[in-house]
Amino acid sequence: MDEKIISFQKGDLITPEQAMQLAIAVAYEGAPFVSPNPLVGCTVVDRNHQLLATGYHAKYGADHAEVDALKKLQIDELKNATLYVTLEPCAHEGKTSSCAKYIATLPVKKIVYGLMDPNPLVSGQGAQILTNAGKTAVLYEGSLKSDLEDVCEVFLKNYREKKIFVAAKVASSLDGLIALKSGESKWITAEASREFVHELRSRYDAIVVGRNTVEMDNPSLNIRHKKITKQTQIIVIDPAGTLLRKIQSGSKFKFLEIHDAKNIFFITKEPEAKSEWQQIKFSNLANLNQQLWTKGIRSVFIEGGALTYSSYLSAGLVDRLHLFMAPVIIGAQNGISWSQNFGIAQLEQKLQLKNLKIKEFRPDIYMTGSL
Amino acid sequence: MDEKIISFQKGDLITPEQAMQLAIAVAYEGAPFVSPNPLVGCTVVDRNHQLLATGYHAKYGADHAEVDALKKLQIDELKNATLYVTLEPCAHEGKTSSCAKYIATLPVKKIVYGLMDPNPLVSGQGAQILTNAGKTAVLYEGSLKSDLEDVCEVFLKNYREKKIFVAAKVASSLDGLIALKSGESKWITAEASREFVHELRSRYDAIVVGRNTVEMDNPSLNIRHKKITKQTQIIVIDPAGTLLRKIQSGSKFKFLEIHDAKNIFFITKEPEAKSEWQQIKFSNLANLNQQLWTKGIRSVFIEGGALTYSSYLSAGLVDRLHLFMAPVIIGAQNGISWSQNFGIAQLEQKLQLKNLKIKEFRPDIYMTGSL
Repeated sequence: MDEKIISFQKGDLITPEQAMQLAIAVAYEGAPFVSPNPLVGCTVVDRNHQLLATGYHAKYGADHAEVDALKKLQIDELKNATLYVTLEPCAHEGKTSSCAKYIATLPVKKIVYGLMDPNPLVSGQGAQILTNAGKTAVLYEGSLKSDLEDVCEVFLKNYREKKIFVAAKVASSLDGLIALKSGESKWITAEASREFVHELRSRYDAIVVGRNTVEMDNPSLNIRHKKITKQTQIIVIDPAGTLLRKIQSGSKFKFLEIHDAKNIFFITKEPEAKSEWQQIKFSNLANLNQQLWTKGIRSVFIEGGALTYSSYLSAGLVDRLHLFMAPVIIGAQNGISWSQNFGIAQLEQKLQLKNLKIKEFRPDIYMTGSL
Repeated sequence: MDEKIISFQKGDLITPEQAMQLAIAVAYEGAPFVSPNPLVGCTVVDRNHQLLATGYHAKYGADHAEVDALKKLQIDELKNATLYVTLEPCAHEGKTSSCAKYIATLPVKKIVYGLMDPNPLVSGQGAQILTNAGKTAVLYEGSLKSDLEDVCEVFLKNYREKKIFVAAKVASSLDGLIALKSGESKWITAEASREFVHELRSRYDAIVVGRNTVEMDNPSLNIRHKKITKQTQIIVIDPAGTLLRKIQSGSKFKFLEIHDAKNIFFITKEPEAKSEWQQIKFSNLANLNQQLWTKGIRSVFIEGGALTYSSYLSAGLVDRLHLFMAPVIIGAQNGISWSQNFGIAQLEQKLQLKNLKIKEFRPDIYMTGSL
């Protein structure tokens, strides 16, 4: 995410905050492939606080971040080194062996970890293994606490609440409009930000769209990114089943050609007796999320339209907003607002975004925060 | 505006781009008091490109930027110095003597100016005087061209089109809402950005508000800023005259107590026979602007509400948008959009903002661009 941080090189003198920032930044590299594991990043610095290596958990089943970083180094480079890890090194043996036990065998001096293991049964145990081995293991206390929670947010939500994480992506004008009432909506934002949208899509297990968006925009809903190849799952909210019936009567849509039928879910109140695609019976969004959870989906990425965004907002189910704004004014008179079916009675009920981050994808602006 | 640039100190080695950026940044310091003159800033560097001084046109009738900067220096410091000025040094003697002639007498070597004098009768003459005196005078060609146009925009609009400059300030939620339909609207944005709003108010000759905003919010409409003391003029758009009649029947509003009656203009279709305050007969906004021009007003700052913003947008009369966004979602269902009475038939008619700048006033975001 942050190019300045990512561009540090081996041997650069970095501060503790920069080391942790770097660990956070590289953690996101694993985002397309770690689910249901957490995103984790690690930075190793030598006794003089010069950068040695970074690593991240790249894929479910692959090396943990600490191991990924340490494997790049010779053992004598690690003498009195410090590790910055976004999450407490794991104490237990699972798909991989215990990171804490592995680090305990190395001449590393200090481990700074961003968050405690959220599992109360093992929380603190990784740090204990390290302390017992004569290392200094400390919980990070600094200005990046919110960023550390953010990088781990999907896992934390999954783990703490046994619920899927819901992100919404909106591309609007400066006055909050995503389309004209006529339905015209394409290309409100520009090329640079659309590229990043494909990266974001890859971070979540499934894309959610409303029936109307499929009919109006006919999107492909695949991940088109030069570095990331990933199949995603598609969830179409179609409560009355009108879209599914249209399709069964022969209507063609791009996403049906691109995605395997097993990766497409139609969400309808009355599932059809026969369907090539997956179906989930719809009662309400909270219940839908529960059903998706049982199917192994841990996070979704809502891509519109207005009714879909508004319904999730009204249900209090949006965990993160990814907002792309084009520097244009469309006018609300003939425009469709992304929050048009969501309303509050008093301003004190407004939804507040936390730890807002801003990035320019010129000419667009990208803002994101958690709710 | 840009703290990093402003914080350079005498003796710092700076690049040509930084020198011009600094000249632009200091130019804005004069914004409250130079009207109808242009904002101009100047940076002086020595032969090694180390910063010597900056200066700006601080007030109508006061020293021009070049003189303000040069006065801070000894003549021997100026040997082989370079001046960066946002606007071509003036050739003619006016309220002050000619800057070009003054600089010609100094041991300065080079003058880089951001824009040509917009007056075709004298454009290039300042540079000619300098060249004739053996100096190198060059028109700046670099990445800050748009910023140089921006700093001079009120003057350029006034000078080229004989029209007033119109800026609109909007404080909205992320979904483009400025209030609830109930009228509740206070404090959508936070303290830090409200402080900057007072600085912005001071940059323009008058504040424009709609009747409804006065009735709903009862604003003071004065400039409350620790460094800037300035009386501003107030223009109340009240086409049907309902507000003016209410006031004449005894209704109290804060702004009436704070501002002298001679600084308050009521804009009504049928002016009242007797009024303590100024009145302008309203036919349309373009005509209103012409009438304000004849009264010596060169720029206005629109502060709402939705109907006022939308009317100016529909008339194509907004030259700059100052948009403050709070990181909140209000929902369009019960909210009022700032562009609610403005609409386009096709997306290609959308209004495009140029040279967008973003600044954080945490937790709010400020964006500004010209239309």
